[in-house]
Amino acid sequence: MFFHTKELQYNAKPSNPDPVYAKKLQEILGGQFGEMTVMMQYLFQGWNCRGDEKYKDMIMDIGTEEIAHVEMIATMIAQLLDGAPVREQEEAAKDPAIGAVLGGMNPQHAIVSGLGATPTDSVGYPWNSRYTIASGNLLADFRANLNAESQGRLQVVRLYESTTDPGVRDMLSFLIARDTMHQNQWMAAIEELEQNQKAIVPSTFPQTLEKQEVSYSFMNFSNGEESSKGRWASGKSMDGISNFEYVANPKAMGQIPKLKPSPAYIHGSVM
Amino acid sequence: MFFHTKELQYNAKPSNPDPVYAKKLQEILGGQFGEMTVMMQYLFQGWNCRGDEKYKDMIMDIGTEEIAHVEMIATMIAQLLDGAPVREQEEAAKDPAIGAVLGGMNPQHAIVSGLGATPTDSVGYPWNSRYTIASGNLLADFRANLNAESQGRLQVVRLYESTTDPGVRDMLSFLIARDTMHQNQWMAAIEELEQNQKAIVPSTFPQTLEKQEVSYSFMNFSNGEESSKGRWASGKSMDGISNFEYVANPKAMGQIPKLKPSPAYIHGSVM
Amino acid sequence: MFFHTKELQYNAKPSNPDPVYAKKLQEILGGQFGEMTVMMQYLFQGWNCRGDEKYKDMIMDIGTEEIAHVEMIATMIAQLLDGAPVREQEEAAKDPAIGAVLGGMNPQHAIVSGLGATPTDSVGYPWNSRYTIASGNLLADFRANLNAESQGRLQVVRLYESTTDPGVRDMLSFLIARDTMHQNQWMAAIEELEQNQKAIVPSTFPQTLEKQEVSYSFMNFSNGEESSKGRWASGKSMDGISNFEYVANPKAMGQIPKLKPSPAYIHGSVM
Amino acid sequence: MFFHTKELQYNAKPSNPDPVYAKKLQEILGGQFGEMTVMMQYLFQGWNCRGDEKYKDMIMDIGTEEIAHVEMIATMIAQLLDGAPVREQEEAAKDPAIGAVLGGMNPQHAIVSGLGATPTDSVGYPWNSRYTIASGNLLADFRANLNAESQGRLQVVRLYESTTDPGVRDMLSFLIARDTMHQNQWMAAIEELEQNQKAIVPSTFPQTLEKQEVSYSFMNFSNGEESSKGRWASGKSMDGISNFEYVANPKAMGQIPKLKPSPAYIHGSVM
Amino acid sequence: MFFHTKELQYNAKPSNPDPVYAKKLQEILGGQFGEMTVMMQYLFQGWNCRGDEKYKDMIMDIGTEEIAHVEMIATMIAQLLDGAPVREQEEAAKDPAIGAVLGGMNPQHAIVSGLGATPTDSVGYPWNSRYTIASGNLLADFRANLNAESQGRLQVVRLYESTTDPGVRDMLSFLIARDTMHQNQWMAAIEELEQNQKAIVPSTFPQTLEKQEVSYSFMNFSNGEESSKGRWASGKSMDGISNFEYVANPKAMGQIPKLKPSPAYIHGSVM
Amino acid sequence: MFFHTKELQYNAKPSNPDPVYAKKLQEILGGQFGEMTVMMQYLFQGWNCRGDEKYKDMIMDIGTEEIAHVEMIATMIAQLLDGAPVREQEEAAKDPAIGAVLGGMNPQHAIVSGLGATPTDSVGYPWNSRYTIASGNLLADFRANLNAESQGRLQVVRLYESTTDPGVRDMLSFLIARDTMHQNQWMAAIEELEQNQKAIVPSTFPQTLEKQEVSYSFMNFSNGEESSKGRWASGKSMDGISNFEYVANPKAMGQIPKLKPSPAYIHGSVM
Ligand SMILES: [Ca+2]
Ligand SMILES: [Ca+2]
Ligand SMILES: [Ca+2]
Ligand SMILES: [Ca+2]
Ligand SMILES: [Ca+2]
Ligand SMILES: [Ca+2]
Repeated sequence: MFFHTKELQYNAKPSNPDPVYAKKLQEILGGQFGEMTVMMQYLFQGWNCRGDEKYKDMIMDIGTEEIAHVEMIATMIAQLLDGAPVREQEEAAKDPAIGAVLGGMNPQHAIVSGLGATPTDSVGYPWNSRYTIASGNLLADFRANLNAESQGRLQVVRLYESTTDPGVRDMLSFLIARDTMHQNQWMAAIEELEQNQKAIVPSTFPQTLEKQEVSYSFMNFSNGEESSKGRWASGKSMDGISNFEYVANPKAMGQIPKLKPSPAYIHGSVM
Repeated sequence: MFFHTKELQYNAKPSNPDPVYAKKLQEILGGQFGEMTVMMQYLFQGWNCRGDEKYKDMIMDIGTEEIAHVEMIATMIAQLLDGAPVREQEEAAKDPAIGAVLGGMNPQHAIVSGLGATPTDSVGYPWNSRYTIASGNLLADFRANLNAESQGRLQVVRLYESTTDPGVRDMLSFLIARDTMHQNQWMAAIEELEQNQKAIVPSTFPQTLEKQEVSYSFMNFSNGEESSKGRWASGKSMDGISNFEYVANPKAMGQIPKLKPSPAYIHGSVM
Repeated sequence: MFFHTKELQYNAKPSNPDPVYAKKLQEILGGQFGEMTVMMQYLFQGWNCRGDEKYKDMIMDIGTEEIAHVEMIATMIAQLLDGAPVREQEEAAKDPAIGAVLGGMNPQHAIVSGLGATPTDSVGYPWNSRYTIASGNLLADFRANLNAESQGRLQVVRLYESTTDPGVRDMLSFLIARDTMHQNQWMAAIEELEQNQKAIVPSTFPQTLEKQEVSYSFMNFSNGEESSKGRWASGKSMDGISNFEYVANPKAMGQIPKLKPSPAYIHGSVM
Repeated sequence: MFFHTKELQYNAKPSNPDPVYAKKLQEILGGQFGEMTVMMQYLFQGWNCRGDEKYKDMIMDIGTEEIAHVEMIATMIAQLLDGAPVREQEEAAKDPAIGAVLGGMNPQHAIVSGLGATPTDSVGYPWNSRYTIASGNLLADFRANLNAESQGRLQVVRLYESTTDPGVRDMLSFLIARDTMHQNQWMAAIEELEQNQKAIVPSTFPQTLEKQEVSYSFMNFSNGEESSKGRWASGKSMDGISNFEYVANPKAMGQIPKLKPSPAYIHGSVM
Repeated sequence: MFFHTKELQYNAKPSNPDPVYAKKLQEILGGQFGEMTVMMQYLFQGWNCRGDEKYKDMIMDIGTEEIAHVEMIATMIAQLLDGAPVREQEEAAKDPAIGAVLGGMNPQHAIVSGLGATPTDSVGYPWNSRYTIASGNLLADFRANLNAESQGRLQVVRLYESTTDPGVRDMLSFLIARDTMHQNQWMAAIEELEQNQKAIVPSTFPQTLEKQEVSYSFMNFSNGEESSKGRWASGKSMDGISNFEYVANPKAMGQIPKLKPSPAYIHGSVM
Repeated sequence: MFFHTKELQYNAKPSNPDPVYAKKLQEILGGQFGEMTVMMQYLFQGWNCRGDEKYKDMIMDIGTEEIAHVEMIATMIAQLLDGAPVREQEEAAKDPAIGAVLGGMNPQHAIVSGLGATPTDSVGYPWNSRYTIASGNLLADFRANLNAESQGRLQVVRLYESTTDPGVRDMLSFLIARDTMHQNQWMAAIEELEQNQKAIVPSTFPQTLEKQEVSYSFMNFSNGEESSKGRWASGKSMDGISNFEYVANPKAMGQIPKLKPSPAYIHGSVM
């Protein structure tokens, strides 16, 4: 069960309206790696958690924090839209600078949401839950989480670089700092889990059942062998079990497929 | 530019038809973490790569391999559908075992694809490119890749567990082995990159610009303090720069938001 | 079965081309609450109608009218795109006003539809049928319809405000008037239905089977009690059956959930 | 900012596992009118609210409650999946009853989520944010909310009818009761708002600007005049301003559209 | 503008209820090549038509007919769902044949639409407008239409094969016949257009501007030269302008791409 | 199995950066009829092919070529984005020409992909696999392919018309030429197949089972008889079997549908 407190987790006060930037900022609200994604991803991981209470509580802690991040950005966007000149059609026709702003806005910010934030990304594409994962395997999911926080911080930094508004930058500096923590947090949780199992997910599947002759082979399918110079092409494998092997000319090991004609009721090809 | 060779990378020969399993197997073909996802993700990362040729070549190597994995699974599914009793309506009505098979099939395997594989997941949802990421930051993307291979191997293992068909299991044992390699590969590439930069993505953004007072704080937003026992709540931070701090009672640091009424032409609320 | 007559239901004649406005106008053609939505929603409600012929006929009357509204707006958009300067690249580079127009257009209006309307909204997102509902319960659906006409009229009014083209405004003044009627119509139909049943949908489910101790309680989950001042927090409930109660400090009534570990074949978390 | 408490708002304890029912129950979690929809709809309406604090607080109260409903259903689904026989392939082939269960499950409950709830509906379609609306006009949005609670309660009742599990029914009886309250709540809020404005949304647009000759006309576009017998076809209009008129033979009032040929660079039709 | 007549274009009367078949039949209602697709595709082609009135009228004729086909199938599905045993949970548990039916149904047919048709395909995926095309070039679009009618008739035939219900087959025999006509119709229209222009769309682009050395070359990118035996590999080209050429070993004609590092504010890769 | 060679199939070298054009060019990369569509469509048709090896090899040849086209366009877009002024916020505010560029860019090209191509269309909508078809009937699918190449060439030509950059036009001139070949190729394959079967897909369904009285009738559902002047309205039918008939006043042949009330557990309408 949840409770809401009116104060934002951190300030969300733009210094000036900027409807074009409001459109861009939607990316970290409702985009693939926006706050809605981590919020829903963590909450579902928490609710589905079948492990140690320590993990479940930790996931619920951060999932609950992320709702507050969605709130902050939504609030910021609504304020950036205050004063958006969506109506002054005639003036815009005369003043190309206003025209550029109108052309750069998300029209739904005026027509659909009435100057409010929308649960969409920076091109207006709606958020959907296939952005999230809760697999029932914490090591797998913590890697998903580390990725989400890495992509997320990268996007927030790029948005920081594309505004000079002090109020917006102040809020983003908070989100960037939290993403610093969250990347650290998932790295810590991953390290802890890896101490109890092999690094390869899932570690409970017996490797004797996999086709072990190709379990540590790097295969060169793009001509040129620059890839042989990487850490992945020689030396001890990262799971400590074997050594990397570089296969310069990988061979096909399978059949040439030949499918049977389909039965009559399928009405397949006549040739 | 690409060339195709007729032989499959590895055998894809089911021992028996099984249309219900064909439906399930679609998950690792066209699902969120299926082979289409890693194929397109790696190819776009390679094409967009602005870095050292060593990385670009490596990414293109694996991206090209993944097309072959899509090919193997598609071929397997088409064969699993051979012999699917989609027509024998009357018999099915009398024989509940056949009815169960018919009910468990994906109807599009008969109606739409004529007993062929479809570029969709196990519930028939079409693959879409928002499953992929190519961010222009290799460390961020390699974390995405490690996650994809972790979720992917987990799903293949679960599919291995839910069939006893020797031919299907043989193919899956190959894919599981390649996912072992690919998890190792991305871990190796991540380690190599992390030697040249801080672990936090993006490492080029000056931390002085972030709100550093919250950069290493774990905040307890779900009642109960079980989360304080994890590695993320105390000790050296994973980036080696600071120490984790546990905030048992996190406080709001922001304003109570109060939006202005919308302008008249928005026709907002009357109260 | 349907018949088409060539004349539009009302004039759709813009006074001037305006490709940027054409993009915006798409919202009420193919958006969440555009004419395609009400058209398909009403038609499916009519086709699925299991009630009195009076209702079925009425729904088919309005569903059929809505096809004509889609037609009018599509026709208007095609004309607004006539004369769109999509080609004059070099001139645009020199003239920022033309550049603003090009930047503000939907590129698909040139590349994909060849200056025709598209079945999408103002950000180019395709119309999809999850925008509609036909539940088999007319009171529920008439509320959906009243909502659709309310959101729809609001959007048309906002579009009216953002153009000064007399021809466009003339067409919109017709659509706004029809939405006035359609809001009235659904309110009338709702009132008629509510005279034969309780206001709560579905009225046929015995309230003795619901957890009646919370059936009329307003629960305060956001700190501060401003919400206690509303009509919903005290006085007779709207269904006339009970009284509203304000719960200032709602309590959890459920268990602390604890899920079992997953079976081995799921390969869940190792801790 | 939000806080989480570990106890559920109400009990979510199934008496028996039932993976087929788990699939169905997804509808009210991640479906068009499921709990995720009302949760996100109310939260965005609250964050974007530009009106009286009384309304904003009320919306945040209910939005916060809805997160708890998502939590309860997710928890219930995870428990219904405990014991799902996803592996026993061979036994299933022999026992049609098990086969029917396997065929009726959502395969992603095993392969993707590892026996956890997914943020999708009962056919596995992912939740997306176009299910929600926050228009910046409270009267419009409260009608959306009343509709959502009407459709939602109808769906929960149908799910109640299709199980006999006492634990599941107990939880559903709570949700049905809350939907009773929430329908009442939105009706109360609507009534309060309508006292300050006309019933037609948006009430601030001058009716003199709409094409008033068709503002109160019911038009008969489906042959047969059964629809003339409804409340919508005669008598005082619901907004109290005019009288309904029945137009038995509606006439086209617009032009026969004739579009200009497209410019050469569009490469339109040759005829 | 449109008018509706109550009678269906052809009979839609199933001999027996069959909820599993109702699910399958959705494919030709709301699937990629279902009746909703051709209906919306033709209507938009008609509304956007910038050509000879003969074509516009013809397209509107068939577009209007297709609405009637949607109506017939929706009506059929609603009747197939009459008598669906969605509630008899306990009996189903005992009788595997009933269980198979329940497992094979679309659960939304009970929970969401209350035994009505839904605007979705056979896996419950919602119809969306990206299934359609109206390009502003009639020859291009008539090829789209011929394809749609070919895929559509194929799917209807497969559905005919998977039922023995005389009433369903009667309706399908009508739809199959209409698809026979509609394939003929688009072939006729294509032939007519091709008499006035070259067969290659768009015919108005000067071929001197294309890279003519590869305009008639078949390139062998999959090892093995079986493809050299087809009509496409030698002889006069179909547009009558040149001759097909078989390139057994196609060569790359482009550069090895090398992208510049991204600017600092993008925070790209560090290596 | 596939191999990659580093050289592009043809040059992809823009003469100048142009981020607005980069956004437009996405249409033929990740749009409905972009290169990703034909690539995936052909690959799946090839993998599912149950016919003569000649066809399978041919389809794999072209499918493999299309991957190279995706590669060329992705490479071009990444270079067009080099030098995009996404950061210079302050300067842009002063210079409307820069503002127009910023407003016309796809913001995800900066925020999400870091100046790389994205697998989306020109409005940022992600590519999805419902754009493709592989039906198991080659004649049906070759018509789909001819359509795709017709729409595709039309779009490339329109993009050629909207740039003057010599490097971009050079690459497009190659793609246009290949589309010339590919239209020719599919026409040739269609002709070859039609020599072995009737032109109507599927040709194996006995026409005696269809409702033959409407198999060759053109029905006039839009008032006015301009459509009677077309080739489709009189003369020999295209399949050579019958003659076209023009039905000026098509009659309904079906029942007036009347659905039964739903069972009690559906909680349908009360009236
Ligand atoms: Ca290589
Ligand atoms: Ca805690
Ligand atoms: Ca409160
Ligand atoms: Ca009527
Ligand atoms: Ca070949
Ligand atoms: Ca006509």
